Amino acid sequence: MRKVLITIAYNGRGYHGYQLQEDLPTIALMLNNAVNSAFGFECNVTGCSRTDAGVHALGFCAGIEPKSRDNEITVPVEKIPIAINIKLPPDISVLSAKEVNVDFHPRYDAIKKEYVYKIHASRIKNPFYDGLALEYGREISDTGVEKMNEAASYFVGTHHFDAFMSQGSSIDDTERTVYSAKVERNGDLVEFTVSANGFLYNMVRIMVGTLLQVERGKIPPNSIPGIIESKNRENAGFTAKPDGLYLKKIVYNS
Amino acid sequence: MRKVLITIAYNGRGYHGYQLQEDLPTIALMLNNAVNSAFGFECNVTGCSRTDAGVHALGFCAGIEPKSRDNEITVPVEKIPIAINIKLPPDISVLSAKEVNVDFHPRYDAIKKEYVYKIHASRIKNPFYDGLALEYGREISDTGVEKMNEAASYFVGTHHFDAFMSQGSSIDDTERTVYSAKVERNGDLVEFTVSANGFLYNMVRIMVGTLLQVERGKIPPNSIPGIIESKNRENAGFTAKPDGLYLKKIVYNS
Repeated sequence: MRKVLITIAYNGRGYHGYQLQEDLPTIALMLNNAVNSAFGFECNVTGCSRTDAGVHALGFCAGIEPKSRDNEITVPVEKIPIAINIKLPPDISVLSAKEVNVDFHPRYDAIKKEYVYKIHASRIKNPFYDGLALEYGREISDTGVEKMNEAASYFVGTHHFDAFMSQGSSIDDTERTVYSAKVERNGDLVEFTVSANGFLYNMVRIMVGTLLQVERGKIPPNSIPGIIESKNRENAGFTAKPDGLYLKKIVYNS
Repeated sequence: MRKVLITIAYNGRGYHGYQLQEDLPTIALMLNNAVNSAFGFECNVTGCSRTDAGVHALGFCAGIEPKSRDNEITVPVEKIPIAINIKLPPDISVLSAKEVNVDFHPRYDAIKKEYVYKIHASRIKNPFYDGLALEYGREISDTGVEKMNEAASYFVGTHHFDAFMSQGSSIDDTERTVYSAKVERNGDLVEFTVSANGFLYNMVRIMVGTLLQVERGKIPPNSIPGIIESKNRENAGFTAKPDGLYLKKIVYNS
């Protein structure tokens, strides 16, 4: 039986996140329907991750296999993106597809995830960023970017990130390893890019809220290690809106 | 009496064009309401141009003056963008404002208009370009871009552009002077940028449809002068969708 891994991008503005929620518009609902329609039989579609309502993806991965052993995906992999894309709405797109081993799991086999959070640092809103970046309402100076970048550097390493997890989430192990975290200017955007072996609930958005507290001079960059050690959500910043958040890349072994 | 000229940008995807159409959602309706609400009295808002449903603007200009001589715009010009922006939906933004003479007219005093048309030249659609670029469904080679650019160069000059005007429009003088016209690659987009002293109805979109006929090898680049001379709409290409069209800039004397 062939199992296929697809990489998709989506504009999450109109969706209640990736995960199926009965009849609410979700990415998974659109994707499942498109895949079943493209192949002509029911498939299991397994996402690499959840994403919250309003969050976007540049490189989300999902595995596809027929529900029944009587069916087989026969479409050549290079034709799969177009075949599914014509069944998808314009704000979801299959970028590529490849064959994977039947025991491959898009979620458990991920060794690294990368997110980027986009902040439009301007007094004047950009009408093309509506829902696609955080409208910060003020400029961020080069010094501000440097301070945010210094603060971000303290996220790197293996830590218990309880202070950067939304309250109410129940999870046993809050330890995660952050591989890289940087803040840089990209045109009229300030972008926070972070990669880790995994993320806690709302972790990136709370990191961003905290970095913006640093930008405003409310807390110094070197207060981050203390906030992490405190394991206390109240010491970190606010949870930034989903608008600016993009799941950028999933890395698998091999 | 103070008269103010504002420059606005908008994502036209959700609107029935600029021009007021009773209660339909139009840019003018949103802008008039926001201006009246920001200043606290009724104003006349005069646009520099019409734009069709689904067309966008990077630098549309509009003049604002109180309807009644009893009212006066007292907000300092540098505070006007923010004052109006908080009354506008996120997909319309006032970029700047300046004072102009009372006899200034945003439409009749324009000496040059510039449009850009964005084509996403890829087999795979981009979910973030939905409504914001023409999804061409195929790549355009460097040779293709060169051919389109050569064809575009023939638009430059003073011509009767009847062949590039939608049928049904009634206009006396179809002569327009095109100052510049070029096609170039910009990342994953191919962009056609054209400036003129004015444009006929659908002129840019028919130019794009014709340039895409050139890209596909249906007509040679040097057939453009003959098409212009024919003054026959049937000899030009299709009318490209509004999605990719942006009013980029309006130039005024002085």
